Amino acid sequence: MSEQTFTTVGTRPIRHDGVDKVTGRANYGADISLPRMLHGVVLRSPHAHARILSIDTTRARSMPGVKAVVTGRDIPLVQAKLAMGEAALDLRDMGDNLLAHDKALYHGHAVAAVAATSLDVADQAARQIVVTYEVLRPVLSIEQATARNAPILHEGLKTIGRPTIETKGPTNIAGKLELKLGDVERGFTEADVVIEREFRTPTVHQGYIEPHACVAQTGEDGRATVWTTTQGPFVVRDACAGILGMDAARIKVIPTEIGGGFGGKIPVYLEPLAIVLSRKAQRPVKLVMSREDDFRASGPTSATVIRMKLGAKRDGTLTAASTSLWYEAGAYKGSPFGAGAMCVLACYRIPNFFIESYDVVVNKPKVAAYRAPGSPMAAFAIESVMDELAETLAVDPIAIRLKNAVVEGDRAPYGPSYGPIGLKQVLVAAAAHPHWKAPLADSQGRGVACGFWFNAGMSSSATVTLNADGSASLVTGNPDIGGTRVAQAMMVAEELGIEVDRVRPCVGDTDSAGFTDVTGGSRVCYATGAAVIQAARDVKDQLRARAAKIWDVQPDAVGWNNGCALPPGAAADRQPLSLTELAPQMAKTGGPIVGRAAVNLPMAGPGFAIHICDLEVDRGTGKSKVVRYTALQDVGRAVHPGFVEGQMQGGAAQGIGWALNEEYIFDENGVMENAGFLDYRMPVTSDLPMIDTVIVEVANPLHPYGVRGVGEVPIVPPLAAVANAMHAVTGVRFTRLPLSPPRVLEGLVAAG
Amino acid sequence: MSEQTFTTVGTRPIRHDGVDKVTGRANYGADISLPRMLHGVVLRSPHAHARILSIDTTRARSMPGVKAVVTGRDIPLVQAKLAMGEAALDLRDMGDNLLAHDKALYHGHAVAAVAATSLDVADQAARQIVVTYEVLRPVLSIEQATARNAPILHEGLKTIGRPTIETKGPTNIAGKLELKLGDVERGFTEADVVIEREFRTPTVHQGYIEPHACVAQTGEDGRATVWTTTQGPFVVRDACAGILGMDAARIKVIPTEIGGGFGGKIPVYLEPLAIVLSRKAQRPVKLVMSREDDFRASGPTSATVIRMKLGAKRDGTLTAASTSLWYEAGAYKGSPFGAGAMCVLACYRIPNFFIESYDVVVNKPKVAAYRAPGSPMAAFAIESVMDELAETLAVDPIAIRLKNAVVEGDRAPYGPSYGPIGLKQVLVAAAAHPHWKAPLADSQGRGVACGFWFNAGMSSSATVTLNADGSASLVTGNPDIGGTRVAQAMMVAEELGIEVDRVRPCVGDTDSAGFTDVTGGSRVCYATGAAVIQAARDVKDQLRARAAKIWDVQPDAVGWNNGCALPPGAAADRQPLSLTELAPQMAKTGGPIVGRAAVNLPMAGPGFAIHICDLEVDRGTGKSKVVRYTALQDVGRAVHPGFVEGQMQGGAAQGIGWALNEEYIFDENGVMENAGFLDYRMPVTSDLPMIDTVIVEVANPLHPYGVRGVGEVPIVPPLAAVANAMHAVTGVRFTRLPLSPPRVLEGLVAAG
Repeated sequence: MSEQTFTTVGTRPIRHDGVDKVTGRANYGADISLPRMLHGVVLRSPHAHARILSIDTTRARSMPGVKAVVTGRDIPLVQAKLAMGEAALDLRDMGDNLLAHDKALYHGHAVAAVAATSLDVADQAARQIVVTYEVLRPVLSIEQATARNAPILHEGLKTIGRPTIETKGPTNIAGKLELKLGDVERGFTEADVVIEREFRTPTVHQGYIEPHACVAQTGEDGRATVWTTTQGPFVVRDACAGILGMDAARIKVIPTEIGGGFGGKIPVYLEPLAIVLSRKAQRPVKLVMSREDDFRASGPTSATVIRMKLGAKRDGTLTAASTSLWYEAGAYKGSPFGAGAMCVLACYRIPNFFIESYDVVVNKPKVAAYRAPGSPMAAFAIESVMDELAETLAVDPIAIRLKNAVVEGDRAPYGPSYGPIGLKQVLVAAAAHPHWKAPLADSQGRGVACGFWFNAGMSSSATVTLNADGSASLVTGNPDIGGTRVAQAMMVAEELGIEVDRVRPCVGDTDSAGFTDVTGGSRVCYATGAAVIQAARDVKDQLRARAAKIWDVQPDAVGWNNGCALPPGAAADRQPLSLTELAPQMAKTGGPIVGRAAVNLPMAGPGFAIHICDLEVDRGTGKSKVVRYTALQDVGRAVHPGFVEGQMQGGAAQGIGWALNEEYIFDENGVMENAGFLDYRMPVTSDLPMIDTVIVEVANPLHPYGVRGVGEVPIVPPLAAVANAMHAVTGVRFTRLPLSPPRVLEGLVAAG
Repeated sequence: MSEQTFTTVGTRPIRHDGVDKVTGRANYGADISLPRMLHGVVLRSPHAHARILSIDTTRARSMPGVKAVVTGRDIPLVQAKLAMGEAALDLRDMGDNLLAHDKALYHGHAVAAVAATSLDVADQAARQIVVTYEVLRPVLSIEQATARNAPILHEGLKTIGRPTIETKGPTNIAGKLELKLGDVERGFTEADVVIEREFRTPTVHQGYIEPHACVAQTGEDGRATVWTTTQGPFVVRDACAGILGMDAARIKVIPTEIGGGFGGKIPVYLEPLAIVLSRKAQRPVKLVMSREDDFRASGPTSATVIRMKLGAKRDGTLTAASTSLWYEAGAYKGSPFGAGAMCVLACYRIPNFFIESYDVVVNKPKVAAYRAPGSPMAAFAIESVMDELAETLAVDPIAIRLKNAVVEGDRAPYGPSYGPIGLKQVLVAAAAHPHWKAPLADSQGRGVACGFWFNAGMSSSATVTLNADGSASLVTGNPDIGGTRVAQAMMVAEELGIEVDRVRPCVGDTDSAGFTDVTGGSRVCYATGAAVIQAARDVKDQLRARAAKIWDVQPDAVGWNNGCALPPGAAADRQPLSLTELAPQMAKTGGPIVGRAAVNLPMAGPGFAIHICDLEVDRGTGKSKVVRYTALQDVGRAVHPGFVEGQMQGGAAQGIGWALNEEYIFDENGVMENAGFLDYRMPVTSDLPMIDTVIVEVANPLHPYGVRGVGEVPIVPPLAAVANAMHAVTGVRFTRLPLSPPRVLEGLVAAG
C-alpha cells in the first residue's frame, strides 16, 4: 500500500471552482433569484421557554403584498425517523423546531413565517402576527436542567440509555451512554498519582461565513425544487419529504456553492418552510437568515460539563480513568454525547475505565454537528489532565503520551480494535519537530494536546463520463466545501492517466447524482473518493473491453498502464492504444462510456493529531496571543496536500477561537447577548500566526489510496493545547473556556 | 415479442413536465437571465453573395456600453470534422457560417456581433459597423447553380461522389450518390406503362415556435457554461469545443426546455458567438434570434428538383424506376440528398432501379435537418407517380401499393434486408378504414400516399437512481420535445414495478448526463429508451443481489416479478421482498443503488405509414381545405399512445403546410420576402380538421419492448397525399409545391 506510486495524487493543482470563487461568480444560497419570487420572513419567539396560547395571523394575511402565512399548523408532526448513516434524525423534533407547535423552546425559535412581494412587506407583516405566550422559567444549564423540580422542556421525554436505564418521572435527560473496561476501582488503587478535575466549555457556533439561505419553488402539481446552501442535498430532500409527507422523487434539491458549514449546514431550518410558503403562494419563495438569526436559531454545538479522573503509575503508565460527560442538546434531544464518550479516551491504552455520558435538553437552540462533534470538549478534559499528570510526574508531555498511545491492534474504548493508525507516528514527529525545542520568551508558554476522530464512511455514488476528446466529466452528490471537486478530479486523472484539468468535476443535484450522504464526517475524500475511483476503474474496464474488441481478443487479456490499453500476447503485433486514441472510437466500439459506482463504507480510518501551541500572555490584562502553532496529523494519504494543510489550519484556527474567545453569552432569560461577529469574537487573520503543518501518511487499508479523512481531527487538540500553554505561562490550570482576557485575569488574581 | 404484457407501457399518464409547461413556469432559451448579463446583436449581410473587403468596428467598439465586438477573425476556421452518429459535421463550414470570413454566402449571413449593456445599445452599435462588400451575382436555384458559367460559391469545392466521380473544374455540386439494382433499360422495356414527371418543392422552414436563443458565461479560466435551446446539448458542446479549440470538458451545456426543433435545433448558430463575446467581455452574454433572423439565417430544408420515371406491368407490378434527385444545400454542402436517395424507393419492391442524387450549394441559408430529412420531397415524387400509375391502370391506389409493398426479407434499396416491418399492415388497415370508403362531396377529392423513414439509433446513456422511499430518479441527455420524459419514466416504472409518478425523469446537462446523441432521428424513445430499460434492469439486478444478501443465497438464484424479489428454492420459507421493502435497506445492504447503461445502436426499426387525405377545393379561387385526414403508421410499440398520436398528428400537420402553403419566396437578389409568420403561412388549428390516427404495432426486435420510433415518418406522406387529393378533385396533376391558391388557380386555368 505505502509503496503505491502516484502521478497526480500528492500534487497541488488549482481547484476547478477556484476562479469562480475568487472572482465572485460562484452562486451561494442567497444569490438565487427566480421570476415572481417572494421574500420570506420568519417570526421568532422573544422567550426562551413559553407556552404558545394562540397565534393570530389575520392582520398579517390581509396586508397588501402578503401571499402566504404559515404557522406550526402547516407543519405536521411526524412520528418517524430519518436514517442518516448510523444515526437517525427525529422528524417530529425537526418539524417542531421548524415552527414551534405548543411551546417555544428557545429564544429565537420560529413561530410563524410570511412570504410577501418584498422583504420589507414580509417583515412588516410578521410584526403584525399576534402570538400570546405563557412565559415559563427557562432552563439554561446542565445544573438547572438536572436540578430537583427543574422546569421540564418536554413532558413525555424519557431517557434513552445504553445500557438500558429506568427513567424516574419527568426529566430533561434525553440520553445516556456508558462504556467500561476492567476494574476501575482497582485501577485507581494501582495508581501512584490520581488527578481529578471538572471542565466546562460554552456554547459555540460554527461561524460559517454564509448564513442559511434557500429558495423553494412548488408547482401546482406539488413538485418542489429547492436551491439551498447545504452540506447534504439528499438530507434536505429526504427531511423535507419526511416532514411534509412527500415522495422524495417529488422534491429536487439543487445545492448552491456553500460558504462553510462545519456540520451546521446539515439540519433543515428554512427549506420545508419555503416549500410550504411556496405551495400556498404558488410562487417561488426565498428565505435568508440574518447573522443574528443564524446565531439564535441555527445549531451551535453543545456546552459541556466534564468530570475527569485519571490515575497513573510513577513512570507515567495510565492505570484507570473515570469520566462523566454532560452535553447540552439544546431544545431537542441529540447532542454528540455518544461521540464524546467514544472519543474521550480513544488516544490511550487504559486497562480500566468507566465512561458515562449524558444528553441534556435546555432552552437553547438545538445543537447541530460542529467539526468532530463532541470530541474537542472531551479532549479538553483528558488532554488537560494528561498535561497535569506529566507535570506532576515531571515527565515530558509528549513522552507520557507516547508511553500510553494506542497502536494497531489495541482495542478502542468504543469496542473494535484499531487497524493501522498513526498516533505514535505523529507523536514521534512532534518530539522531533524544531518547534518542540525552540526557545520561548518569559511571557510565553508551550502546550501540547492530542486529538482523535473516527472519520466517517457512509454512502456515496459517483459517475464518470468519458468524452470523445479524452476529457472526462465527474458527478458526485457532495457540495464542495474543502476542495473535494479537485481532489476527486485528481482521482479520476490518476486512474485514467489524464491531466486533472481535463476532468470536469460537478456537484450534482438530487436528480442527477446518485444518493450520497452529507459532506461531513471527513468522509468525502475517503468514501466518495472510493466511489470515484471505482467509477473511474469502471471506465477503464470498459476501455479495456473496447480495445479488446478492436484487437479481437478477450477483454480480460487486455492490460492497462499509464493511460494505455496494453495488447495481450495474442496480439503482440499491436501497439498499445491510449485513452485519447480509444475515446474518439467509443461510438463505433459500442457506444458511450459511463462509469458508475456506489459504496457504503461503514468503517473508516481513525485519525490522530498532536498540536503544539506557543502562547504569549499579558499578565496585566489577561490578553493572550498564539505566537507559534504546529499541527501534526496522520491523514492516511494527502490527495491534494494544499487542501489537507488548509483543513489542518482551519480546524486549528476554529479550535483556537473556541479556546480563547468564543462563547454564547446568555442573560438570565436565555437571550443571547452577543449574536453578531462584533461581540461573538472569532479569530481573524491578524489574531493568528501562520499555522505550520506536518502531514503524516499511515495509509488506511480501507481506501484504495490510503485516504483516511482529515477535516475534523484538527479542531480536537487546540482547546487543551491552548489551555496547557496558558498553564505553562501562568502556572494556573484553567478548566473553563474560553480563556478570554477577563477570565484569565480573574484566574491570575485568584491564584495571586 | 408481441406477447409481452405490460403494466405501464401503453397507458397515458400525464407528462411530468406538463404542469410547468401549461402554467408558463418552464424555462426556455430566452428565459435565462444572469447577473451582469450583456445582450448581443448579430449584424447580418444585406447581400446574398458578396465578397467582404473590410469590416471596420472602430465606431461600434468606442460606444459607451459596448463590451465586445467580434468578426470572423475571432472564429478560427478549423479543418476538421465532428462525428455525429454516422454523419460528420464540417467544423470549417460551421465556423464560416457562424461569422462570414471572406464571403457572405446568403442574405442574413452573420458578419459581426456586438455585446452591450442593453439590447438597444448593442443594436445601435451593430449599425455602426462598416462592412465593405463586393457584391456578386447570387445563385438561387439548382438550375442557376449547375448552369455553364454559374457563379461559384466556394472556389475549392469538389464533388464528393459515391461511386467516385471526377470533378471537372469549379462546381457548385458538392456531392453525388448513386444507387442501382438490376437492368433499368430492360425493366422499362418490360413495362406496359411508363410514367415520367419532374417535381419541385420549395425551401421550407421547420417553423418551431421558439427561435434560437442562448446565454453563455465564460470565466477568466476560459471555462464556459452555455444555456441553450437545443436538440443536442452534446452537439453544442462538441461543436463549440471543436470550433473554438477547447476541451469538451471545459464547456458545460445546459439544455433549457425547447419550444420545438424538428431538426432545426441541432446546428449551432449563436452558442460559439456567445462564448467568444462572453470571453471578450468577461460577462455573460445572451443572444436571441428574432423570428426574421430565424427564417433568414437558421437552417430550413432543401428546395428540390426530382425527376421520376416509373414503369409497371398492366397488373400494377413495378418493373423499373429511374430517378434523379437534386437537393439544395444552401450556402454550405450537406443537404439530405443521400437520405433522399435511400428513401425514395424504400416502400416498393422494384427489381430494376437507378437512383442518382445531388447536393448543390446555392446562396440561401445552409439547410438543416427537418423531420425525416430528404424523405418528404422524394415521397412527393414517387407517391405522385404511383397515384398516376394507379389511375392509368385503373387500379385501386392502395391495392397497387399493396402489390408492390416491401415485406420482411426484401432488400432495401440502400442495401440491407428489412427485418419485421409494417408497411403491408398499415396498407391493409387503411383499406379497411371507414375513411377510405366514406362518401365525398363534388368539390372534394381523396388522395393517399405512403411514407418511409429509417429511424435512427446512435448513442445514448441513462442513469437510474433508486431512492430510499422506493421512488426513482432518471437522468438522460435528451431534451424533451415530444414527451420523452414521461415515456422514459414509464419504462423505468414498467421495469421496477412502481408508479410512473414515482419516477422523476430529468434532462441532464453535459456534465451530469452520459454522452447522448441528439433528440432527433426518431431515436429517443428507441435508443435512449433502450438505455433507460437497461439502466432500470441494472437497478433490478442490484436489488436482486441485495435480496440475495438478506436471504444469504446466490444473487443469480433470486427471481424478480411484479416489483418483488422472489426467494429461490433454497429460501423457500422466505417471503418475497418488494422494491419498497428493499429500498430503505439499501445503505445497510451495500450502499446506494445507481443503475446505468450506455448503448450505441447502429440499427433501428424502419417505419412506414400511409395517410388518407380528403381535400375540398374552391375552383373559383384555388383555395383548398383539408376536410378529413387519417394517418396510419407502424410504430413498433406505442409506449405512451397519446404522444405517439401527437407525433403522427404533428407530422401530418407540418406536411400539409408544406403541401399547401409554405415556401420561402426570394426576390432576384436572394432576399427572402416573407420572413415572418404572417407571410410565411403555416397551418394553424383552424386550418386543419382533427387528424385521425391508427397506431399499428409490428414489434421491432431490436428494442426490448419493440419500439421503432415514430416522429418523422408522419411528415413524409402528406405532400403527395394532398397533391393526389388535389388531382382527384381537379383532374390536374400538380408537380410543384406549394399548392397555394394562386398556383392551383393557375393550374386550373392552364388545364382549361
